[in-house]
This record gives sequence, C-alpha cells and structure tokens, in this order.
Amino acid sequence: MVYTSQAYDCIYDWIDKKIRKKLNKQLFRPYAEYISIENPQFFNRIHNHSTWGNAGVGMIGLVMDDDELVNWALKGLDIQVSGDFVKDNDGGSIQLEGQMEAGFFAQLDNAFSPDGYYTEGPYYQRYAMYPFLIFAQGLANKKPELRILDYRDGLLIKAVYALVDQTNAAGEFFPINDAQKGMSLASRELVNAVSMAYHYGGKDAELLSLIQAQGRVPLNDSGLSASAGIAAGQTKPYVLKSRELTDGANGDEGAIGILRSENWTLMMKYAKHGMGHGHFDRLGFLLYDGKKEVIQDYGSARWVNIEHKDGGGYLKENTTWAKQTVAHNTVVVNRMTQFEAKVDASEKSPGTPYLFDASDKNVQVVSAKETNAYDGISMQRTMSILKLEELENPLILDLFSIQADDQNTFDLPLYYVGELMSTNMEFKKNNTLEPMGSTFGYQHLWKEGQGKISAENFRMTWFNGENFYTVTFQANEADEVLFTRIGANDPSFNLRHDPGLILRRRAGSTLFVTTIEAHGRYNPADEIPINSFTSIVELRILHESKDYAAVEIELKNGPVYVFAFSLTDKNPESKHSINLKQDKLTWNGHFQLIKRATEKEEI
Amino acid sequence: MVYTSQAYDCIYDWIDKKIRKKLNKQLFRPYAEYISIENPQFFNRIHNHSTWGNAGVGMIGLVMDDDELVNWALKGLDIQVSGDFVKDNDGGSIQLEGQMEAGFFAQLDNAFSPDGYYTEGPYYQRYAMYPFLIFAQGLANKKPELRILDYRDGLLIKAVYALVDQTNAAGEFFPINDAQKGMSLASRELVNAVSMAYHYGGKDAELLSLIQAQGRVPLNDSGLSASAGIAAGQTKPYVLKSRELTDGANGDEGAIGILRSENWTLMMKYAKHGMGHGHFDRLGFLLYDGKKEVIQDYGSARWVNIEHKDGGGYLKENTTWAKQTVAHNTVVVNRMTQFEAKVDASEKSPGTPYLFDASDKNVQVVSAKETNAYDGISMQRTMSILKLEELENPLILDLFSIQADDQNTFDLPLYYVGELMSTNMEFKKNNTLEPMGSTFGYQHLWKEGQGKISAENFRMTWFNGENFYTVTFQANEADEVLFTRIGANDPSFNLRHDPGLILRRRAGSTLFVTTIEAHGRYNPADEIPINSFTSIVELRILHESKDYAAVEIELKNGPVYVFAFSLTDKNPESKHSINLKQDKLTWNGHFQLIKRATEKEEI
Repeated sequence: MVYTSQAYDCIYDWIDKKIRKKLNKQLFRPYAEYISIENPQFFNRIHNHSTWGNAGVGMIGLVMDDDELVNWALKGLDIQVSGDFVKDNDGGSIQLEGQMEAGFFAQLDNAFSPDGYYTEGPYYQRYAMYPFLIFAQGLANKKPELRILDYRDGLLIKAVYALVDQTNAAGEFFPINDAQKGMSLASRELVNAVSMAYHYGGKDAELLSLIQAQGRVPLNDSGLSASAGIAAGQTKPYVLKSRELTDGANGDEGAIGILRSENWTLMMKYAKHGMGHGHFDRLGFLLYDGKKEVIQDYGSARWVNIEHKDGGGYLKENTTWAKQTVAHNTVVVNRMTQFEAKVDASEKSPGTPYLFDASDKNVQVVSAKETNAYDGISMQRTMSILKLEELENPLILDLFSIQADDQNTFDLPLYYVGELMSTNMEFKKNNTLEPMGSTFGYQHLWKEGQGKISAENFRMTWFNGENFYTVTFQANEADEVLFTRIGANDPSFNLRHDPGLILRRRAGSTLFVTTIEAHGRYNPADEIPINSFTSIVELRILHESKDYAAVEIELKNGPVYVFAFSLTDKNPESKHSINLKQDKLTWNGHFQLIKRATEKEEI
Repeated sequence: MVYTSQAYDCIYDWIDKKIRKKLNKQLFRPYAEYISIENPQFFNRIHNHSTWGNAGVGMIGLVMDDDELVNWALKGLDIQVSGDFVKDNDGGSIQLEGQMEAGFFAQLDNAFSPDGYYTEGPYYQRYAMYPFLIFAQGLANKKPELRILDYRDGLLIKAVYALVDQTNAAGEFFPINDAQKGMSLASRELVNAVSMAYHYGGKDAELLSLIQAQGRVPLNDSGLSASAGIAAGQTKPYVLKSRELTDGANGDEGAIGILRSENWTLMMKYAKHGMGHGHFDRLGFLLYDGKKEVIQDYGSARWVNIEHKDGGGYLKENTTWAKQTVAHNTVVVNRMTQFEAKVDASEKSPGTPYLFDASDKNVQVVSAKETNAYDGISMQRTMSILKLEELENPLILDLFSIQADDQNTFDLPLYYVGELMSTNMEFKKNNTLEPMGSTFGYQHLWKEGQGKISAENFRMTWFNGENFYTVTFQANEADEVLFTRIGANDPSFNLRHDPGLILRRRAGSTLFVTTIEAHGRYNPADEIPINSFTSIVELRILHESKDYAAVEIELKNGPVYVFAFSLTDKNPESKHSINLKQDKLTWNGHFQLIKRATEKEEI
C-alpha cells in the first residue's frame, strides 16, 4: 500500500475520472479499511508492522483526499482491542500499558525516544524509517499545517541521525535484538532517509559524505538537494562520536551507550527489552575495531528471505539461542536467562543508566545498572576506554560489579572473533564434545575445553584480520574458563559455529574485572609479527564493595594506572575516599584515573 | 649472507684496504666456508635453504673477487655426503637419486621444471626466488659471459611467470604443500621478482599492472625500468590464463593444471610430492571464485613467525593433519593416507598427466592419473569447466574414476567454504561429537553429522560472501555423506575449525561424479536472494568402465548435456563409441560435450 500509493499518486490526475472513482471505491478504500478498521489489532499496535499499515492507509488517504483515512492513520482507531489479540505471534504486546492513543502520532510518540532511538533497535528502525519518512514527506507536502517534520522537536530527522550513529566504520548497524548482520547505510531505506535528513534537516554537510558512500540518491526533492550539495563540493566527513541514546517515549527507560575512541567502537546496552524482537542482553556489549568485530553480538538466527532456511523467516534457534542471555556478552546467573526469559517482565524493567561521560577523550565511561533481571541480584557494569600513553591503542576496561546475598554461579561469556593464539593457562581440550546444558541457550554450546585459573590473571590473545587482541581477566581462586563453540543441537546447520569464552565464578557479591587490548599487526605477505603480546603485566583489584570499585593496571616496563569508580554516588561534587592496604585513595566525582609510580609498588 | 653481501658490496671500494683485507680474511671467507665446505650436507642439497647458501657464498665471492667461492656456489662441492646426512630434519632427501651436481646451476637444473614450476610449490618458490634472482643479477653484472638469465631458455624469468600464474584474483598463491595462506604478489620477494622479470625479460607491459598493484618497486635498475614503463602509460592488465605447469627437472614428472573461466580458478595437482614440504594430495584440487575460496586447500598448520604458536615454526598438526590426504579434496582409500604417508615413495612416483586442453574456452579439461598411491588401485581424475548457455556461471564437472580389484572404502572430502544452506538429504546431526578416527588425519575431524543418500543425487547448497554454491553428487545406494569439522585432538587450538563434507562409498571400481555451481547472489543490505537454488535437475552416469566415463547433466527446464571422456586413449584422431541403454554415443578425440534434446529423454 505504501508503494502503491506513491504510484497511484503519480497517475491520479491523469486517469479517467470514472476509473478513478471506481478504483477509489472498489479497490483502495476497501483495502485501506481491511488494513485498518477490519484489523485494529494490527493497525493500533506500536510496532514497525503497524507503522507500515498507518503509512499505507494515510498515504492512500492523502492521494484520494480521504481525510477519514488520513485521520485514522494519524490518530489510530477508537477501538478497544482485547482478548486473543493482546499478544502478537512473536510474543510482543499489542497495546503498551497506559497507551492512550494509536496511529502515526502514537508511533512517533511511543516508538521513539526523544533522541530518535527506536526501541526495537537499528535493524528494525531502518525498516520502519521508510514508511515513517515517506508518509511524513506526503504530509509535509499536502498538510504543511501539521509541521510533521518539526513534530517532537524534529524527531524524524533525529531518528535518522540516531540510525547513522548506531553503525561501525563500515556503516553496518549494531546487530542488537533481532537483526541480520550486514544491514547498513547502503540499504534502500537509508538511501531515502539520509537524503531526506539532509534536505529537511538543515543541509548538514556531513551527511553528504554518507550519501556519497551510498552512491545513489532517491529520485525526489531530497535526492536532488543532496546531489546539488555534493556537486557544489560541500561534502564534509561524517564524524561518529560517542553518545548515549535514551530509550522510551520520554527518554527515561534505559539507553544504549556508544563510546568511540580512535578505531574502537564500544556499545553497551541497557535499554528496554525491544518488544517482540528484543533479546535478553541487558548490560551486554559489542566491540568493533574499525569495520571488524572484536567481541560480537550474535545477531538473529535468521537468513532473511533465503528460502533454504525455513523460507527466510526466523529460525527456531532464534528463540532457543539468539535471544538467550548466554548468547550475549553479559553475565548469566545460575545458567538461566535474564527475567527467566519472559519478555513482559523484561519489557517492564528497562536498564538503569548510571553514568555516561565522554567529555574527556582520554577517559570515556559508560555505566548502568540492572537490578531486576535476577531475583536478589543487582548488577552494575562500568565500561571505559582509556587512552594510556604507553599503549598503541586505547584500552577497554570492564568492571562488572555484582551484589548478591547468596552464592551463585556467574558466567561471563565473551564472543571473541578470530583465531586463538595463546593463553597463560593450562587447559584441557575435550576429545568428546557435549552440549553445555539443556536449556536457556546452553544446549547450543559445545564445551570444547576448560581449565581452572591458577594465576592471578587469565589472559588470552587472539588474531583477527591482521591484528592481535588480548583479554586479561582478574581471577579468583577456583575461577574457571570454558572454551565454547556454538553449534550443538542445531540439526539444520542454522547456527554459525563461532567460538567463545566463558569466565565462570562461583561467588556472592563480586567484581569481574577485564581489559581488552588491540595490539600489533601481522600480514601474511610479509610474515613479520609486530607487538603480538599483551602490554599488561597484571590487573589487580584494589577495592571492591557495594559502593566502590578500584583497580590497578600494571603495564610492561613499570607504569601503573589506577582507576577508581563510585558505584552509588554519582554527584560530580562528591569527594570519595577508600582505604587500600597501605594507603588511601581519594578523588572527586564519579571516577578517577591516575598514573602511579613507574616502578612496581607493594600494595 | 645474501643481504650482507649487498651491503658489503656498496662500501667495498670505499673502505680502507686494510680493513677490507681483514674483513675478507677473518670474517667473510670463514663465514662462507662455514656455510659451504664445513656443512656440505646443507650446501649441496637441492632445497630452498641451500639456494640461500649458494647465493650467499656466491655473492660474497663476487664482492671479494673470490672465484673459488663463486665456483662452489655455482657448481657445488665435490664432496660425497652420506650416512646421517642423507635426510634432513623435515624428512626430505639431501641428495636426489641420480643427482650428479650441486650448487646454483644444479638448483636451477633440478628445482625448476622447464616451465619454471618449483617442486616445493609457489609459497616456497616465492621464498627461494629472492636469492635466485639477486645472485643472478650479480652474476649478470659481474660475469655476463655466463648469460645466467638466458640459462635454460630464460628459466628464471619463466619462474616468475609461473609464480604469478599460481595466484587467485587477489594475487594470493595457491596454498598447496606447506604454505601459509595469504602469501601473495605483495610480498617483498615478488616486488623484486616481478620488476626483474619486466626489466630482464622483454619489458612485458602486462607485468606493469602487477607492479602497479604492488605499489612499490625495488631500488635498482629493474625498479627504475618498471617505474619508467608505468610513467609512460604502457601498463596493460595481466591476463591470467589456463595453463599446465609441468614438474620435474625435465618437465616429465607430473604437473599442476590450472583452468580459468570467467571468475573461476580451478587448480588440480598431480605433480611430484614437493620434497619435505610436500603434502599427500595427489589429484587434489582447489577452487576460487575470484578472490574467494570456494573449495579450499587447508594450507600448512603453521603461523609463520608468530611466537604464540610454538615460536612460529611448523606445528605438530602440520604433520598429523595438514599433510594427510584427508585434509585435501581428493579420494582417501580405506581411511589411509596416500603412499602410507611415506614421503620417499610419493616423491618417486609423481602423478601422470593425461590431458590438459584449454583450447576451447567453452570446454576446458584437465585429466591426470595416480596409480601408485594405493596398492592395486588406479585413479584418474578429470575435471572440466563447461560454459553452458543456460547457466549464469560456468559449471565445474568432476569425474573421479577408480579401478580396483577389491572392495574398498573411498572417502572424497570437499572442504567447502561458507555456511551450509540446505541439502536434499535426511541427515542426523550428532549431539555428542567424536573424532572420526585415530590416524592419518581422521583424528582431527569431528563427525558433526551423517546420512545415507537415498535419492539419485545428493545436493548441498552453501553461501559464501554474497553468492550461493551447490555441489551435486551422483549417488549410489548406500553411499554416505559425513559432515565434518576440523578441530578434534587439537589441544592448543592450532587448527582452524572449518567445515567439510565427505562423500563415502564402499565399492570396487567406481566413478565419482560431482558438479559444482556458483549461482545467484544475496547481500544483507538489500536482503533479496537471486537464483539461490541449483539449476541441475539431475546428474546421471551413462557409462562407466576402465576406458570411458560418460555422464548426463539435466538442467532446469529441460536441456540435457552429455559429457563423454576417453580414459585410456588420448589420441586426438581416435574414434570412440559406447553403447548406452537405448542408443550409441560416438565421438572423435578425447572428449565430447553435446547438448541433447531439450525434453527429458528416457535413457
């Protein structure tokens, strides 16, 4: 309907009046009614499918000057939907709690946060943007009095920026929630969206570089405008910056935090669930080095439109694997998925942003809490990118703090991408492989090997696309490392057989401290490895408590950095002080990074 | 020594005579003697290491005007080496049987075939080319009377072409024998070699395109010459053609056959063993679609120079896995490696070229025999690339004919690269993985799944880098398909965990018929799969015997092609005739491809 309306509009004034009347009455109006009043459970929902419905009905209304249809499209139907219809077949709710309205305005009000973040994530936002924008364009032309592009402070244009900002250096969207990897700014929807954002959004010259990379423009005003800008040599490079994108209609229901530093792109997710397409990935993260995945999010288990794979729809492994917590880079408690894998429960309790601070390029920090995913357990993850002068690349520091009354088994998976080079641990690779469990995604993991960590730190180096990466993990006695591979209980080869690592700790309250380095290079045409080993001599916890986490990073040749973080008091004016073994650490504000003596100190 | 000689030569006339004399007598002459007369077992060998030795000693001889050294370098030492020294630590022979000479000329005589193929394969040829060429350059300057670059009909220049022709569309060498993948025309050795081939080899403008892609030239006459050619706009694209490269000093000890058609590069190997760095891969093949591996050769199990991996040397899995027959795309008999994994036996019996015919672009064929790898079994593989007007890409047809007195188990592995999309078979994926065997490489393969083929054909489609590929295999009752993955008994994660397929047949004399198609495309930014299914309805054997193989390929919508091949009589004048069920097939010469009725025929 969205596409047909555009075609019909082109010939509307040209075709015979009688035929037009007949088409209007016998085809398009009934079709529009079918999508709307005959299927209100579909039409009144806050969901990308309904956006298509709203736009289609509204656009055909604009073509036929049928204001009733336009009204339905804009404001939804005054019909209460109940009974069987309250759940869609993907488990999402039809009607949001407290939802008072429906239709296009309601989609704009509810589906987007004030930052333009769409709760289903960028993959679906890309899909939904097309009808949002094309309907908006029609409204802008035919009902300028609505000032639709100014609605909610220019929300639709902001949404395009939000999409652009959720990409890696290849323009590929972060594959959070149900998302096929590789979807990118090159898609037809974004070709339309970016040009529109340029044309209607203030002629931002940085967008022109994205349009140039797209290599095509839509055949309309926006495309013309963008082409003219490029032809006039106004293109500026688009600079991807660190930013937080809030979730929820009012921007107060969680967020995603994106930190960028040199080649790193780190994204941590503490948003809402993302409705039916959401994953149980609270406090998970993904990490790119330029275009390369370093720590990956699996994405969805689906080959979109490819008939070989169950007709191209969602595969059953999407539910049994891809949505489960263990498929993500976040802590799994007692081998169970967050919120016991209940969408409603997760949807009701978004993550809690604690701190997002990218003001100092040398110490960028994102921190968020999740206190509802597991009963009696509160978790806070603090990830930072630290530029240390001794290192060739900024360092990722991950402090995962857990407060728990009882002993639990905590699993922290890391889906590293590449070939394992070495570890500092004695481990055993198994000569018979068994699945790691029977539920919550563990049934899809082979246990390739395992070892008990004996040193103070566990470290592992891997190689990916000409660079080395090392994870260093501060270990406690009896911590285990499990080497995993995806692909068990996968009867149709639906899953990629990717490797992973699980750091397992049995504990009550505890602090997981991990660093990730990118270092060195190697290419097979010259065969000379440069800087292939970690620069971290040791990672030590100086303090862990409900209120503070402080760690020490000792680098090769001596320099020692201390990072201290206040977990409960984020008042930038507060003074903090913690007692260490031999001295006292004091600082102001949320966190502090200091360089200590260049000689190894006794703590 | 090779590098030091060049440096020493630069300052030789400039430094103080006394110092020079001292350096000559106390450093370089003793050093040269150490490499030569003190280690004749090293110096007199036909091997890339000895080439370095010969070149080093010869070059320092040229610098110091020490003709004795130059002579040793050129002609080797008149010293018989025996006893413990006849084997090197990699199992290769020090002295070739019947070898009468040693030194640089002997290297040229024995290591290269008349086509310039180096028996260790392109990875080591690349390594060895540098000393060959740099010493030759010195000799050309200082002893022009030797006409070294004309030696054996311009062998050294031919060798550069042979190297260039053993690459895929990315300029990467075929990773046959011990070879690290990714080594390419971009290496420093080839930067020197290609410019030299341009300068000394007749200013072939096609080489300039390779030099342009290399992006740098050596700082010498050759580099200047190449730069001038490029600056003068003489560059022509280098066209990679189908060709056979013979192996053996006289070109009569096997060969490799390279067929190219549109984006396909198919290489079949029926050469000598390749000495200590050889693999038991007789009649194996590898297949590229442009830059992409479609059917891969594993290469070596080694991370060259990367300290993490056993100091960067050969890993033990190189012997236990990478060299074994099951690691290659060729038939394994009774789960045992060819020649019982004995290098000497394999080295003595090269493959037997049968036919290489690329004269008709629409039907290119390579065929070779291997009759010694397994007692009582003779094998002949005939691979062709057929351009059929109905298909979007040329079709790979593989006829693997086996004559055997007894029943044997034949395993034909196919190391496809990509993600499995679908098969037409009921198979079971295992929920406990075990290694497939305990010896000859099988201990490194997990058996992920298996199925008995019930249909006339087994087909499997996979996806790799935006394209679909389908293998179709003509099946007999009780044939099995095994889904494998590399990585069992790999305690240090030294092996890539790549997937494979094994077609298993219990039979006496038999014919394996397989086709490989590249078809369609899909990219994740538009999500529209094009032509994602095979175009082959059925593959049928019309005739199989000791003398002939004839198959029929039925395409979608009717067209049927018949390919008939004479396995024993390759006289192009011969007339052939075989009786089919209902009619007779007659043709002249080695093979025939005909298109039959467009309706399905009863045979």
